[in-house]
Amino acid sequence: MLIILHPDTDISSEAYRETLNFIDALPGVSSKVHEIQGQQQKLTEIYLLGDTKKLNAEELEALPAVERVVRISEEYRILGRHADSKRTTGFHYNGLTFDQDSFHVFAGLCAVDNPTHVEEMMRALKENGQQCTRMGAYKPRTNPYTFQGHGKDCLPYVFELAGKYDIKVIAMEITHESHIEEIDECLEKTGRPTGVMLQIGTRNTQNFELLKAIGRQKEYPALLKRGFGISLNESLNAAEYLASEGNANVVFCLRGMKTDGGAPHRNLVDFAHVPVIKRLTRMPVCVDPSHSVGNHERAPDGILEVTHATAQGIIAGANMVLVDFHPHPSKALVDGPQALTMPDLPAFLEDANLCRETYLKRQTIYKKAK
Amino acid sequence: MLIILHPDTDISSEAYRETLNFIDALPGVSSKVHEIQGQQQKLTEIYLLGDTKKLNAEELEALPAVERVVRISEEYRILGRHADSKRTTGFHYNGLTFDQDSFHVFAGLCAVDNPTHVEEMMRALKENGQQCTRMGAYKPRTNPYTFQGHGKDCLPYVFELAGKYDIKVIAMEITHESHIEEIDECLEKTGRPTGVMLQIGTRNTQNFELLKAIGRQKEYPALLKRGFGISLNESLNAAEYLASEGNANVVFCLRGMKTDGGAPHRNLVDFAHVPVIKRLTRMPVCVDPSHSVGNHERAPDGILEVTHATAQGIIAGANMVLVDFHPHPSKALVDGPQALTMPDLPAFLEDANLCRETYLKRQTIYKKAK
Amino acid sequence: MLIILHPDTDISSEAYRETLNFIDALPGVSSKVHEIQGQQQKLTEIYLLGDTKKLNAEELEALPAVERVVRISEEYRILGRHADSKRTTGFHYNGLTFDQDSFHVFAGLCAVDNPTHVEEMMRALKENGQQCTRMGAYKPRTNPYTFQGHGKDCLPYVFELAGKYDIKVIAMEITHESHIEEIDECLEKTGRPTGVMLQIGTRNTQNFELLKAIGRQKEYPALLKRGFGISLNESLNAAEYLASEGNANVVFCLRGMKTDGGAPHRNLVDFAHVPVIKRLTRMPVCVDPSHSVGNHERAPDGILEVTHATAQGIIAGANMVLVDFHPHPSKALVDGPQALTMPDLPAFLEDANLCRETYLKRQTIYKKAK
Amino acid sequence: MLIILHPDTDISSEAYRETLNFIDALPGVSSKVHEIQGQQQKLTEIYLLGDTKKLNAEELEALPAVERVVRISEEYRILGRHADSKRTTGFHYNGLTFDQDSFHVFAGLCAVDNPTHVEEMMRALKENGQQCTRMGAYKPRTNPYTFQGHGKDCLPYVFELAGKYDIKVIAMEITHESHIEEIDECLEKTGRPTGVMLQIGTRNTQNFELLKAIGRQKEYPALLKRGFGISLNESLNAAEYLASEGNANVVFCLRGMKTDGGAPHRNLVDFAHVPVIKRLTRMPVCVDPSHSVGNHERAPDGILEVTHATAQGIIAGANMVLVDFHPHPSKALVDGPQALTMPDLPAFLEDANLCRETYLKRQTIYKKAK
Repeated sequence: MLIILHPDTDISSEAYRETLNFIDALPGVSSKVHEIQGQQQKLTEIYLLGDTKKLNAEELEALPAVERVVRISEEYRILGRHADSKRTTGFHYNGLTFDQDSFHVFAGLCAVDNPTHVEEMMRALKENGQQCTRMGAYKPRTNPYTFQGHGKDCLPYVFELAGKYDIKVIAMEITHESHIEEIDECLEKTGRPTGVMLQIGTRNTQNFELLKAIGRQKEYPALLKRGFGISLNESLNAAEYLASEGNANVVFCLRGMKTDGGAPHRNLVDFAHVPVIKRLTRMPVCVDPSHSVGNHERAPDGILEVTHATAQGIIAGANMVLVDFHPHPSKALVDGPQALTMPDLPAFLEDANLCRETYLKRQTIYKKAK
Repeated sequence: MLIILHPDTDISSEAYRETLNFIDALPGVSSKVHEIQGQQQKLTEIYLLGDTKKLNAEELEALPAVERVVRISEEYRILGRHADSKRTTGFHYNGLTFDQDSFHVFAGLCAVDNPTHVEEMMRALKENGQQCTRMGAYKPRTNPYTFQGHGKDCLPYVFELAGKYDIKVIAMEITHESHIEEIDECLEKTGRPTGVMLQIGTRNTQNFELLKAIGRQKEYPALLKRGFGISLNESLNAAEYLASEGNANVVFCLRGMKTDGGAPHRNLVDFAHVPVIKRLTRMPVCVDPSHSVGNHERAPDGILEVTHATAQGIIAGANMVLVDFHPHPSKALVDGPQALTMPDLPAFLEDANLCRETYLKRQTIYKKAK
Repeated sequence: MLIILHPDTDISSEAYRETLNFIDALPGVSSKVHEIQGQQQKLTEIYLLGDTKKLNAEELEALPAVERVVRISEEYRILGRHADSKRTTGFHYNGLTFDQDSFHVFAGLCAVDNPTHVEEMMRALKENGQQCTRMGAYKPRTNPYTFQGHGKDCLPYVFELAGKYDIKVIAMEITHESHIEEIDECLEKTGRPTGVMLQIGTRNTQNFELLKAIGRQKEYPALLKRGFGISLNESLNAAEYLASEGNANVVFCLRGMKTDGGAPHRNLVDFAHVPVIKRLTRMPVCVDPSHSVGNHERAPDGILEVTHATAQGIIAGANMVLVDFHPHPSKALVDGPQALTMPDLPAFLEDANLCRETYLKRQTIYKKAK
Repeated sequence: MLIILHPDTDISSEAYRETLNFIDALPGVSSKVHEIQGQQQKLTEIYLLGDTKKLNAEELEALPAVERVVRISEEYRILGRHADSKRTTGFHYNGLTFDQDSFHVFAGLCAVDNPTHVEEMMRALKENGQQCTRMGAYKPRTNPYTFQGHGKDCLPYVFELAGKYDIKVIAMEITHESHIEEIDECLEKTGRPTGVMLQIGTRNTQNFELLKAIGRQKEYPALLKRGFGISLNESLNAAEYLASEGNANVVFCLRGMKTDGGAPHRNLVDFAHVPVIKRLTRMPVCVDPSHSVGNHERAPDGILEVTHATAQGIIAGANMVLVDFHPHPSKALVDGPQALTMPDLPAFLEDANLCRETYLKRQTIYKKAK
């Protein structure tokens, strides 16, 4: 059971104390306080664990500091919606808002190769009004003998160039807990010119120890990719590992499912799950069309298949798009064939914005229809 | 190898005769003539089979009746694009055009239950300006002891009510070749008040004998559903069975893939393949959001998940939408839970049209960008 | 609910009449009588349909002709075990017994190509003491432009050669109901020198109209292959279609599931389901290692992977093995690469028999352990 | 390219020096020496990396210390067979041999719960002549709020009890690199009464950082479970991560694939891949019937489905069986329903040995047949 307190409840107030005392006295029930600092107010949630079935929700809602009581299921205890469409979603980071109503494009390099390409990318983003990017420094690869990313060596120039071009958030995959520290140290050393969203790749979706390590720090938000061979439910439970350790600032990313059914695409695009995740959880939803589609084929209508997939994510309410660009795809060290090129960027963004506007209009149609 | 003749080439002309004579004289090569009657002109294609590798395309293009020569692969010989974006697509039927540029919504009953519900549906469609519908008379069911559809008994009132409300094409699943005759006889008897598109369900995608039977008649076009457990390539080859027997008037329908990865949806929605099918073949592409999604859940943005999936199909260029409605879903004999209701129809169509317009605008963005 | 009468109950007896009268008088309940002719006795089963929940099993067991009453679920009504380990299994055909205790190898040609190869195969089988074979005359193929089998033209020599070499049962796939008649006519014309088990391939597992047609005749038993992309439950329901139309003489055949997980095999071998099918239904279980494995690779222990899969099926109690042989695999028109060759036959059979003996010994271990 | 030296080549010998000098002088080629200490002899392998295509194998085989040269592919460079059936397989650990000819049963507790159950298990193993077991201390669980294993707290009594009952090797899953140290410290502290094989679970098959950490130590061999949603090729590449860091003492474990096709089993049993792994790599192959089957159902022949799966693994040459037992399954904290019980053990082992003997006889049949 979840007790949501009135916004900005002062923990030294009489109302708070009285409420807590009541809760502490409940037999067979323990509690865990979870605070969410929003841009304008602080939200306090109290999770009741144990023998909560017999508790009377109305009685709890009558307590002085309590705004609302929600019965929650065991699954996705913190990140779940628990059929409550009014629960707050998302978080703020480095000046940007990431919630179920926001929209950001993270175009960038799948794998950082050299400072020239990074700068070309950053400059193009700024010229096109973007504040976010993706940059891969640590690359998990199927074969141990292939390029595994430049790792911490490339971080200084990546962060400095991001700062130079006013990029506020970089989505960056990590594969080991030590990478958190490497990133943090480098950001500190370079004067925190940008922010980082820690990305967990699909091969690590159920690497629970990595999730716990990321969940234990609250500095950086997380971007969790869906596991490509497990159920949606299992992937959402993996997200909950982050929250259960203290960090509920999680964006959930769809990236296609591994099944023969997807060919000739690399994976079977799963973006119909965008609204499902919004219904089941409070996480903003990202789509990764590049890894889902994995090709650079163009339909007879002149539009790339990867761009069609992007439009499909956005039209259904995706809050974030993670997409591979590369100044010279043929020279890319990883996944070049699926990358878009710099000249593709303006049309890609115009299309994304058009689809986003259409999505907002679609909401109006249904509000009107009620 | 495929030889496309000049439009409206007269088969009694000297040019035609000369061309044919040349072709007949080619050693180790046989030919098959395929005529496509469009609304404004007749197109004649000649397929060369056998030892065509050594043929000189330029020499053939110099023949008097020949417009163009296309090297084709063994797969999807007739329905394939063979990397030729100029090949004509689609067909005309009963006053309507079905090609890769057209757009139609086929809202209707998954399974016909009684004349009252059929009439309520038809009336609502007319009131909303629709000319197409879906009506299930023959239902293949997993369990032999469940309702299998009213079969030919319901055809008379279905066709008459369609005529009464100006519905021009009904998509109707058949599961046995005898159903073609039953439908044909009943249409004849009722004075052909409407048209029928013969639908092949996902369990019969590789029922090659049924495909051949449908392919042998040219009166009715076909709507082939993708097999839910086979590769896209295999399903497209199944469509070619229809064409190989003489009927190339085929719409290809995506309906979700059977895999755990789809839950909580009934299937994993596969609409990212809309542009793929347009690239690989000349078939118009339909999407079936009802069977893909299979629920009636609403996202926090107020939009049903089945409607989100619809929007995803249309935004990527789908030419047709097959969707379940029912006046009283709780009384539906089959798949009630996934059906939309009559009051949902106007908003559904407004949304569909908005997404279609956006799709057309998207094309403009990319044309401009070239 | 299922009422099993005493063996050899005479339908003109008083006991039978009394029993039937009682059943007919049950309110809201209809009945369906199902007779099974065994080698030594006739078994009569009466299925009660409708409102059977309130019926008293003991009261029914007290009726004069009744031996036993079994509560059955809606699924697999006739073919199911319904948790009753004593239900009779299988059937007799052309002098052979096919039940959950029998064991037969059906080695033969995937596709009949010419009389010479058929005779080489039949002769080798006789020399090795075999009475069964597989012979493909009607071949469903993914691509419409590939060889589809010799069809009815090859039946006369196939049947005559079978007779010449004392082969009693040929498993033969059919893809259209007309093939039943073609086979029947040819057998009649050639003097019924052999028997045929009608095989339904994996692409037709849910071709319910074909299943119904085969179910309507009782002359030939059926061999139903599991659907390679559907659940086991769905495939078992498909088998029930045969029984629901009157023919419960069905062998169920495992042949691997279509999933990436199976590579480098053609399919993911699913023979761990052998005991599951025996637990859930009364059908004998066949395994098809050739189509499951689909290669001719040899493990370092000197044993072919297809033979290892065979051993896995038998060691878990498979009652039948369907396996491709070919005198000259390189000349085979279909699936040559997976075929075993004539010199492989003796060792293959010796191995199969060794595994079968070991299976019987395994049963003894567990009986003793109880 | 791989150069295998004569067994027991002395690295201070003239032959060795001469050979190395020749190799070092090859242009564009670097080398890596890999030593394998067998029970009776030491094997030295030299991997040549870089531009090896033009090298002349015969010239290299003529070098004084060289026994044989094998062309290797990029994949599974160290663990692969590279089509060479004579490559040595496996390793020795704590007095036991694990290779492609050995056979061991690892029956034990999926999750350690308390010392009493551990002791009951160990005692039963000793009474039945077993030297190996499985014991789960660190349990990765889908839901963060469920029991995650007793971790390092239970190690002391697990190791001491193993020593008391002469258990030589415990397979124990780890989920974080720190667990290696915890295990090592505890073993040291308790006087190394037993050995540990570090198990990597299916959710961590592509947790490359964990694999690298395990690969960096050579004290403990590894047991890598196949990834349940990736291809076999990808899982074998994951094994190569261990070897690429220095530890090639790896057993590869099949445990079923995650797909709907497996139901009513928990996973689709994949033991037909036993001979495939032996053909492609030099790893001993383990099967885990408990997690594959995941139930406690009994076929009408009186044999549990989990035991049938075990037999299928062994009959095809599995070298190791990992199987869950529990003294009181209803009290087990994890996966109780799939556990076998103490009274099942003698029959289980008798069955396993019978199947193993039959497998050895099967080899004889095919050797004879050649």
